[in-house]
Amino acid sequence: MRARYAYLGPAGTFTEAALRLVASPHDVDYLPQQHVVAALEAVRSGMADFAVVAIENSVEGAVTVVLDTLSTGDLAIVREVLVPVSFSLAARADVTLSDVRRVAAHPHAWAQCRRWLIANMPEVEHVSQTSNTVAAQQLADSGREVEFDAALVPPAALEHYPLRVLAEQVADNAAAVTRFVVVGRPGDIPAPTGADKTTLVVHLPDNEAGALLTMLEQFATRGVNLSRIESRPIGDELGRYLFSIDAEGHLAEARMAEALMGLHRVCPVVRFLGSYPRADGIANEVRPGTSSADFAAARQWVADLRGT
Amino acid sequence: MRARYAYLGPAGTFTEAALRLVASPHDVDYLPQQHVVAALEAVRSGMADFAVVAIENSVEGAVTVVLDTLSTGDLAIVREVLVPVSFSLAARADVTLSDVRRVAAHPHAWAQCRRWLIANMPEVEHVSQTSNTVAAQQLADSGREVEFDAALVPPAALEHYPLRVLAEQVADNAAAVTRFVVVGRPGDIPAPTGADKTTLVVHLPDNEAGALLTMLEQFATRGVNLSRIESRPIGDELGRYLFSIDAEGHLAEARMAEALMGLHRVCPVVRFLGSYPRADGIANEVRPGTSSADFAAARQWVADLRGT
Amino acid sequence: MRARYAYLGPAGTFTEAALRLVASPHDVDYLPQQHVVAALEAVRSGMADFAVVAIENSVEGAVTVVLDTLSTGDLAIVREVLVPVSFSLAARADVTLSDVRRVAAHPHAWAQCRRWLIANMPEVEHVSQTSNTVAAQQLADSGREVEFDAALVPPAALEHYPLRVLAEQVADNAAAVTRFVVVGRPGDIPAPTGADKTTLVVHLPDNEAGALLTMLEQFATRGVNLSRIESRPIGDELGRYLFSIDAEGHLAEARMAEALMGLHRVCPVVRFLGSYPRADGIANEVRPGTSSADFAAARQWVADLRGT
Amino acid sequence: MRARYAYLGPAGTFTEAALRLVASPHDVDYLPQQHVVAALEAVRSGMADFAVVAIENSVEGAVTVVLDTLSTGDLAIVREVLVPVSFSLAARADVTLSDVRRVAAHPHAWAQCRRWLIANMPEVEHVSQTSNTVAAQQLADSGREVEFDAALVPPAALEHYPLRVLAEQVADNAAAVTRFVVVGRPGDIPAPTGADKTTLVVHLPDNEAGALLTMLEQFATRGVNLSRIESRPIGDELGRYLFSIDAEGHLAEARMAEALMGLHRVCPVVRFLGSYPRADGIANEVRPGTSSADFAAARQWVADLRGT
Repeated sequence: MRARYAYLGPAGTFTEAALRLVASPHDVDYLPQQHVVAALEAVRSGMADFAVVAIENSVEGAVTVVLDTLSTGDLAIVREVLVPVSFSLAARADVTLSDVRRVAAHPHAWAQCRRWLIANMPEVEHVSQTSNTVAAQQLADSGREVEFDAALVPPAALEHYPLRVLAEQVADNAAAVTRFVVVGRPGDIPAPTGADKTTLVVHLPDNEAGALLTMLEQFATRGVNLSRIESRPIGDELGRYLFSIDAEGHLAEARMAEALMGLHRVCPVVRFLGSYPRADGIANEVRPGTSSADFAAARQWVADLRGT
Repeated sequence: MRARYAYLGPAGTFTEAALRLVASPHDVDYLPQQHVVAALEAVRSGMADFAVVAIENSVEGAVTVVLDTLSTGDLAIVREVLVPVSFSLAARADVTLSDVRRVAAHPHAWAQCRRWLIANMPEVEHVSQTSNTVAAQQLADSGREVEFDAALVPPAALEHYPLRVLAEQVADNAAAVTRFVVVGRPGDIPAPTGADKTTLVVHLPDNEAGALLTMLEQFATRGVNLSRIESRPIGDELGRYLFSIDAEGHLAEARMAEALMGLHRVCPVVRFLGSYPRADGIANEVRPGTSSADFAAARQWVADLRGT
Repeated sequence: MRARYAYLGPAGTFTEAALRLVASPHDVDYLPQQHVVAALEAVRSGMADFAVVAIENSVEGAVTVVLDTLSTGDLAIVREVLVPVSFSLAARADVTLSDVRRVAAHPHAWAQCRRWLIANMPEVEHVSQTSNTVAAQQLADSGREVEFDAALVPPAALEHYPLRVLAEQVADNAAAVTRFVVVGRPGDIPAPTGADKTTLVVHLPDNEAGALLTMLEQFATRGVNLSRIESRPIGDELGRYLFSIDAEGHLAEARMAEALMGLHRVCPVVRFLGSYPRADGIANEVRPGTSSADFAAARQWVADLRGT
Repeated sequence: MRARYAYLGPAGTFTEAALRLVASPHDVDYLPQQHVVAALEAVRSGMADFAVVAIENSVEGAVTVVLDTLSTGDLAIVREVLVPVSFSLAARADVTLSDVRRVAAHPHAWAQCRRWLIANMPEVEHVSQTSNTVAAQQLADSGREVEFDAALVPPAALEHYPLRVLAEQVADNAAAVTRFVVVGRPGDIPAPTGADKTTLVVHLPDNEAGALLTMLEQFATRGVNLSRIESRPIGDELGRYLFSIDAEGHLAEARMAEALMGLHRVCPVVRFLGSYPRADGIANEVRPGTSSADFAAARQWVADLRGT
């Protein structure tokens, strides 16, 4: 049976580009969804085996709805993929740059092209979209009436929707990149590679600075670096946050397992969202005294002392 | 001359409700803007004296575009205001709940009513808006063609736009609240009240867990609690973050001043965005040994030792 | 076969008083030694089963020769005993207080009575002894010529050596107490009682403040309090220290075992010198999240995540 | 007027050797004392300007009576001097090594030669002395009856007391060294050299591990290394300790001043015993962000923010 991958469609989105890096449409079923939450729910409900969702962007930061949906459980990250961010400004065939007043764009796309837009089209007005690619699709449907003159679209979308490109590479930061994760059901964890990440959700015992320090020390004491830490409201009142964390290392490594045990003891909620290979392939630093062999030797020493 | 306040308009927005808590339209000029960034830029350019902008919501978290715009400098927070979040589902006079297929809403509003919508209108479709109140305004303009059947609107908007209320209190969390800040130009800092917050932007020296601990210890060593910490991408590459921080206390208090000096020494960038009274009026905890008198006594002791 | 206890003799010493609290001379063999090191060596060589030695005094501090000898290994503390410190000034029958010029005393005894001596006998001269009780013994041997007129003696010694008491309770601090430990061979560890101590010797990886912090955090992260920490030179050069530590808790408790494992990973040398009941019987504090059940639950949680 | 130096005499002691490194007897008055406490008291009473006292030995550790006397105040360390430790075994002219049964030695000297003595004179008995040099003096007084056959003496003593040397270099550790300090009255502090030490006495707020960590963090947060930390009983009850600390740096340096202020705030007692050049002349490490210029820049930045 072919694996089924839910993702934010339609064809031509950055998410589809990420999915293509994961699995070819010849080998798996692509299940486009209208929203990232729907993609994740498709996994939860069993309608899909995996979802590919953006989790973080080098300019815009966390995709908070993804963080929040992942933090509610029953899902596991099994892989990450990085996709460079690039935008073209596209319109219908009869439109020129000087005609454009209203530009459709997802707020994140808008933000990433803001300086270019202000510099080149000072009077431009933003028409907010939930999907850049849907805007491209609507433009390509020549009979459809739309409320905008042009759209910021991913280059891949232009393969699907024949539009006039008014400008290419309009993103302000040429090095911008979006990080996608492949999400499945909890269970099989990819084997450790020596270059892995572990994603966690952690609630603090209270809202003091001290609680955050105590939590971070659980990692530091075992020599585990963090590559990302985001606070998100727990939702019940202002001032109560959970933390979404990427830590360097794999559940199968002793220093990560020990850090998790420490968190489990001192934090009211700890959720394990997966250990998976780093997209950049950079081997995790293992400080002296924090290798799995060091932990095993320490455990054996104490077992010997105990005579057990 | 009357003070001029820029804010996210039109009339009826939550932001206007926040502004009303700050100053009456009889006393100051209200300058509605189409976007929060425009409101902040109006202060920077001198077109307005102050801007009122949402910075954080108890359900949706940080308003990242505000955090990012504040972090670029030349602005200072002088006050905070809390506004309860409440939504009504409103439509034109001839529409009933069972007619509604497409609902206009800002993504944050949508997120905050998601459970109610799913439970009561399983087939409903989201039409994304940059402003809930603009949608209300458009519905109220009976001659205007719109792409949605109803809108999630703040109760205050209904005073301005006569619409049929299909349902009240549709937000999932009755205790939801949005935190607004009043932003002016750097300079005059409100006097300390004993119940204050200080907002900062801090870059870490590198991307290690150790750097975050080192930064947090600058606060902990002086007994300063944090009430909010958000990471935001610096923007140049994945894995590089700045931190937006609310710390309890006022620049005029020694423990805060000492913590800031410590940050200035160990962090490549520290921006002071203001000290201002806490909206909840709860007096800041002053742990033993961290009062301004304790700091002054310690400084005097060392001065005496030095014979200076 | 009767157990054999080596101790600093002769009869009448504080150490003998400590030994009497441990075992009656009717039940075990008392093996008096001339030096505490000899008492410890008697256990190492198998000549004795146990040694009773002073390890710490509330006024004079650590008995460094005992700390140093224990730190060289092959010995284990199995119990601690507290003995109040009290001294009488005693002389031969024909001597009065006004006759006394030279007083024999172990330097520790001298130090503990210094204020009384200076106040009452301003001209007094100290004749240093390795044992207060030996001085009492010599005075009691009326034919023996001695270089002193009186001696500071433990009250118990007066039961053995009939001397004239010139003054009682001459110790400056009426609450002074000496802590003795019963030392055996490594092996059987007394069962945990909930009110236990664990004695350790730890070398730091280098001589920085950071190394000491790192070491202490291994305890703090697991909620283990320290009741004593002494630095002692390693002996090879100035500035290199080992630490002799009493930590609250028992090797059989998970938080202590985890702290020991942490030390084993980050410190070049860790020696376990025993877990044994606290003499004061005060139950060890178990902070939230640090009970053995908490550790077991955390370990089980991680095992479940790993599917092992 | 010539400066007067009190020291542990008589001529020929290690302390005299240390004093010779400080000032020649042609330039200052040497005031030999019978005890280190007397030497320190001579400064307190004004009888002497300075005292030279041993504070630490690389084999035996702290000279606790000196630490305890210094901690009671009114004295200040102004310099440190290192003297290599070396012992000869000396006797009267008619004694050979095989005749020796009883050897006079200060307990520290005995400890430092213990292995040599056990190896070469297995039956030897220790006769405890308060001064090795006094024993040499007594041996040199041929008419005097003494209770020992030989003495462990510093080489310098042999210049004063003509004795037969039975063995040279009998100390177990050829690299052993004793650290002496020159103690004066509080007041003039030697100017900073960039290679300085500061000696402190600190009481902790309570007897928890957390309190020690909190204290150490006051140094770590300002980048101040510790070169020595000793616990000493406060004296009122078991389990209450003060800490005698040598920190790297000078009171005139901002990072040290800030660390002292932090200690003053969080510790019930902090005593400053002096800042003085390091005997080894090794320049203190100044970590990034902890130079006096860094502190001054940070202070100026906050002053600017405050508009003061």
